[in-house]
Amino acid sequence: MKIDVVTLFPELISVPMGLSMMGRAQEKGILDLHVHDLREQGLGKHRHVDDTPYGGGQGMVIRPEPVFETLDRLDTPEARIVYLSPAGKRFDQAAAHRLSAESHLIFLSGHYEGVDHRIIDHWVDEEISLGDYVLTNGAIAAVVVMDAIVRLLPGVLGDEMSAVEESFGESGLLEAPQYTKPAEYRGLKVPEMLLSGNHAKIAEWRAQQAVERTRVNRPDLLQ
Amino acid sequence: MKIDVVTLFPELISVPMGLSMMGRAQEKGILDLHVHDLREQGLGKHRHVDDTPYGGGQGMVIRPEPVFETLDRLDTPEARIVYLSPAGKRFDQAAAHRLSAESHLIFLSGHYEGVDHRIIDHWVDEEISLGDYVLTNGAIAAVVVMDAIVRLLPGVLGDEMSAVEESFGESGLLEAPQYTKPAEYRGLKVPEMLLSGNHAKIAEWRAQQAVERTRVNRPDLLQ
Repeated sequence: MKIDVVTLFPELISVPMGLSMMGRAQEKGILDLHVHDLREQGLGKHRHVDDTPYGGGQGMVIRPEPVFETLDRLDTPEARIVYLSPAGKRFDQAAAHRLSAESHLIFLSGHYEGVDHRIIDHWVDEEISLGDYVLTNGAIAAVVVMDAIVRLLPGVLGDEMSAVEESFGESGLLEAPQYTKPAEYRGLKVPEMLLSGNHAKIAEWRAQQAVERTRVNRPDLLQ
Repeated sequence: MKIDVVTLFPELISVPMGLSMMGRAQEKGILDLHVHDLREQGLGKHRHVDDTPYGGGQGMVIRPEPVFETLDRLDTPEARIVYLSPAGKRFDQAAAHRLSAESHLIFLSGHYEGVDHRIIDHWVDEEISLGDYVLTNGAIAAVVVMDAIVRLLPGVLGDEMSAVEESFGESGLLEAPQYTKPAEYRGLKVPEMLLSGNHAKIAEWRAQQAVERTRVNRPDLLQ
């Protein structure tokens, strides 16, 4: 998969994307990532990229020219252009799966105040929001969305972890509590059931725990 | 505000937190951030931090000892300990406001598979999820949550941007499309209304556009 990211903060993308799973996906050649500094197409010797909004209001808005000129170079017939915005549709695991099937993604990340809407009308295939909260910077959101997508690409995670993902996806419930060694630590014990060796009973216990945890933390998922 | 972050990937925290708004909040002394590598409390010469789950299953689970020993040192009477987990309550702007009033936050971020549940029972005040998607790494989620919280601290953003936030929060709608210079670019024009100078009409147009954009992208917000 090829991914281009257009941002005012290239380091916010390139540093996390070079570490851990994202770094390995690039080393293996599964992910071909390029980060583009929007300011390189800024206007004048100060490379301005934004201006005040028409019709009044606070904050600054990214001008069309730097984005159009950057996307002129990056766009391909296969490219799907995604704009990270609090006004987008809420990102979820189904969207991660859908986007992981694309061959070329271009992420456009705003900063503070958003972009001139002609950019969205002319270029953007979909607007994605991480959730119902406000961030200073769409670059942080782009890293989250890329992480969720790239981990689904074949060969990025071991088979073992892929299986964990599938089980999460199918049940529609939160995971049951998990425990590991030691069986007792500072007087705190692992539930007896998990040490019983009775796998049918353990599966039943986990299913009950998953429902209970979902009821407490995310009752909306049970409806 | 003091924030401690406990993670297996310190760079995923410290690099983005040193840039842009988060970096300025630290320079101004508004944010006192410390990042702690969980592996420093790992077991044995290889500093293991995880082990296989009791009761069988795939993936690895973070053991109690490294986390307990790290939190022994960091916990204070005022501290609120937050665990980033897909099984948590979904983060939103109300949670960002609530947490921005705390004096000391400790974020615990998992990796892949989660932590021994005794850690959650014994230490964690709340579990937060970014949204309904799976990430490889809670450190990325911690950056998002911190960005949303820190931008609300007095003095971090200019008054101008704070005002933008308030208007977003009050209407419960997505923002109307925004436009800036030039008035025409590649034949694409800014809507006439915004150039009219009639501020009452502009406000009305924006309200209509906000409802329309919300209806298309986030109909759930209108219910």
